[in-house]
Amino acid sequence: MSEFDDALVLEAGVAPKEHQTQLDDQWMIGDAVNGGLLMALAATALGRELDADGGHLDPLALSAYFLSPAGAGETVLRTHTLRVGRQVSTDQVSLLQRDTEGREVERLRALATFGDLDTSGAPVLRAVAPPRMPSPDECLSRGAAAGASGVPGAISLTDRLDLRLDPSTIGWVVGRPAKAGRIRGWFRFRDGREPDPISLLLVADAFPPVAFDLGIMGWAPTLEFTAHVRGKPAPGWLQVVITSANFAGGLMEEDALVWDSTGRLVVQSRQLVGVRVPKGWSADEAQAAATA
Amino acid sequence: MSEFDDALVLEAGVAPKEHQTQLDDQWMIGDAVNGGLLMALAATALGRELDADGGHLDPLALSAYFLSPAGAGETVLRTHTLRVGRQVSTDQVSLLQRDTEGREVERLRALATFGDLDTSGAPVLRAVAPPRMPSPDECLSRGAAAGASGVPGAISLTDRLDLRLDPSTIGWVVGRPAKAGRIRGWFRFRDGREPDPISLLLVADAFPPVAFDLGIMGWAPTLEFTAHVRGKPAPGWLQVVITSANFAGGLMEEDALVWDSTGRLVVQSRQLVGVRVPKGWSADEAQAAATA
Repeated sequence: MSEFDDALVLEAGVAPKEHQTQLDDQWMIGDAVNGGLLMALAATALGRELDADGGHLDPLALSAYFLSPAGAGETVLRTHTLRVGRQVSTDQVSLLQRDTEGREVERLRALATFGDLDTSGAPVLRAVAPPRMPSPDECLSRGAAAGASGVPGAISLTDRLDLRLDPSTIGWVVGRPAKAGRIRGWFRFRDGREPDPISLLLVADAFPPVAFDLGIMGWAPTLEFTAHVRGKPAPGWLQVVITSANFAGGLMEEDALVWDSTGRLVVQSRQLVGVRVPKGWSADEAQAAATA
Repeated sequence: MSEFDDALVLEAGVAPKEHQTQLDDQWMIGDAVNGGLLMALAATALGRELDADGGHLDPLALSAYFLSPAGAGETVLRTHTLRVGRQVSTDQVSLLQRDTEGREVERLRALATFGDLDTSGAPVLRAVAPPRMPSPDECLSRGAAAGASGVPGAISLTDRLDLRLDPSTIGWVVGRPAKAGRIRGWFRFRDGREPDPISLLLVADAFPPVAFDLGIMGWAPTLEFTAHVRGKPAPGWLQVVITSANFAGGLMEEDALVWDSTGRLVVQSRQLVGVRVPKGWSADEAQAAATA
């Protein structure tokens, strides 16, 4: 079994519509479990419930609100069905852990709509094409860039994932960020596990914060993350572009577009992240050139 | 009192953390109350709770999942606090009505993070600039274009709102859509009520479906809608650009960017909408030219 599937194994919980697992420390960024893995776990728990309800197994949309950082340890997923329709179903899920005094603490809450990507993802009638960029072999391994992240603690996540970064978007590794608000790269699981719809929730949140490209290193906590899964990914490398154009009051959006190896757009996501501006940082160079 | 504020008046509900109102038929699109008004109502109920909790009165992020169409009539808003932090608070809200047999039916459920836009919206360090487009006086009133919408029933919403559409993006009114996936225009309340953060949830969902510009008329139900309110709007006209680049399997995204009269970006939203492709519709002309 792949490392990713192993991390998503759920046991029945103590109450109906509850699932539980022992989160290990293999998907950490600093002291916290990666938010993308938590969303994949949340979607897996919902898929389990929907399977029992008889259909709608693919996540079409998922919105997660992050309430507190999750660590390794016992984790409960509590699901709640809001509506089961003919074409789509909508559900809620909470991911919970216990604090040192045994009190239940919610790590994230998500709403999600599930459906069938065989009918809700095809045919493709209109789509953004992937950008031309260097091949994975011409890109830099994320592991090589990890030391520049400014995030304290180990980044065990990067041992599981083969991330390759477009050299033109990683000037921040050597202190020369492009300040374009863009990071591009390639994704695959190190152990060869092929992508599926649920794994796309991890992919869209696996890259370094786009703030790095603006010269702002360090922790960038996610307040809210919404992904729209737009298609079933084909096997092979996934191509990823992360961008941000608006930064005010310590908050910026981070948009991800992900294409599969056939060039088809498979997930589109946006998150709102908190960013602390370092002293002496200049906004001038980073002003967005884009107009709508 | 303005028409919009009048629509947002809430009374205490029968249980703690519940609020209620009598929705009238003045904010309809066809047979349903406009989703933007429902989100503004949901945010108002949450703001009421947070005011009681002592702070965080501005919506920073709100994600609404639409479960069934709301009509005029008795409406209950049930709120639930997830986390009260120093800088932001996160809450959940359900909007409920009763069916003809008296059973409670949920119309939408939303998660939202509130904060203080005086600190979370300023200073602006980086932003997308508004596009150059014809002034409101050079644009076409939405009322004049309403007949072409293909939505059955009255559109009472347009009596409350002064929407002006950029002539270059309303070829669909005369059967000649530009097929660019873009509608642009201006927004203000007809009665002169100035914009505030909660009203931006309505603004981002008040324009005709962007599918019209692809030559696909008719009803475009929202599955999921997330808005990030990025700043407090100045008085005056709001400038709005709606775009879509990805359409597959009967689903497309609809992105909105809204600027205030000083040219400052104040809300950024994305929704996933269901679209029915008419027979004989050709995708070729509508292929997106954009690359990331």
